[in-house]
Amino acid sequence: MASHDALPLVILTEQFAKLPGIGMKTAARLAYHVMTMPADEVEAFAQALRNAKQTVHFCKCCENLTDSELCPVCEEESRDHATICVVETPKDISAFERTGEYKGVYHVLHGLISPLKNVLPDDLKIRSLLARIQQGGVREVIMATNPTVEGDATAGYLSQLIKPLGVKVTRLAFGLPVGGILEYADEVTLYKALENRNIM
Amino acid sequence: MASHDALPLVILTEQFAKLPGIGMKTAARLAYHVMTMPADEVEAFAQALRNAKQTVHFCKCCENLTDSELCPVCEEESRDHATICVVETPKDISAFERTGEYKGVYHVLHGLISPLKNVLPDDLKIRSLLARIQQGGVREVIMATNPTVEGDATAGYLSQLIKPLGVKVTRLAFGLPVGGILEYADEVTLYKALENRNIM
Repeated sequence: MASHDALPLVILTEQFAKLPGIGMKTAARLAYHVMTMPADEVEAFAQALRNAKQTVHFCKCCENLTDSELCPVCEEESRDHATICVVETPKDISAFERTGEYKGVYHVLHGLISPLKNVLPDDLKIRSLLARIQQGGVREVIMATNPTVEGDATAGYLSQLIKPLGVKVTRLAFGLPVGGILEYADEVTLYKALENRNIM
Repeated sequence: MASHDALPLVILTEQFAKLPGIGMKTAARLAYHVMTMPADEVEAFAQALRNAKQTVHFCKCCENLTDSELCPVCEEESRDHATICVVETPKDISAFERTGEYKGVYHVLHGLISPLKNVLPDDLKIRSLLARIQQGGVREVIMATNPTVEGDATAGYLSQLIKPLGVKVTRLAFGLPVGGILEYADEVTLYKALENRNIM
């Protein structure tokens, strides 16, 4: 946006452009769109931003985002609280919940160890995970970080911390995606699929 | 987002998803990002939304967006107020201003006539354009709507209204884009380039 644009619009554009994946052109388009929205809808948007930031915080048990003391998963007594699935972000919980098959609970790290990005173990929610395990009653910890270098490194690091506590540590299975085509699978995935083959 | 997500986050996600070009997945990503922003930055974002909507309105002369009575272009006395460039959106003004070559003023229609989308001439800022021309002192009106069916139809419609007022009406030239390659030009553009050829 140039000097002939109204200043409040320029400021709003810059705010949109700060969001991940939104460049200056998209930000300008969004800012202009806001101008065409009814005033009460813009007010609702501003209020939603403020509200989410003010009322949503970390679940005191699993570090998921919630607006109560415990997140709905931790609160549910019928779930298996002895199995903890360790994930990188709250979005990963949504993915598991969509399967409808997982009955255990979660722990959100809010990141992965990455010396290159200057993310060290202390920057993640690892202490609360260890405290949870040390309280006892945990049978299995499933490492459900992404199958990337950082995801694998974080899973490996945590595994070494947790195993001495006498708890079973597992990792998500890697293999061919369901519906995938062998021809298009990358070598590492194919190798993992071969290595982890099951008896029929 | 599912029922295990905090309600304020779901509401914020829905607000983001209302914006053009933002689907539910991107909206969820943006909402989670807001959670990681410092509280004062979120407050600044909310305030920017509110501020832009409350203080930005249409320039009383050219209908461009501005936070004062007249937009900076209309206010500038050194510009040629006898030449009006008619555009669809305020973004188009930014595009012309970037060329640094246009010294006239603008008029923003805020849309194009489109019976299919139920946009009729009365929904556009046409009355204020005609009033401006009727006040006198206008020498030329340049139709700078997009070279699309709707842009051409709107330009044609306006041209028929303005010509009887004794004002010259022109249309942007169509032809090969500078730096373009003949082989890849579509037929209509090539035909227009041939038709409007200039003497060297």
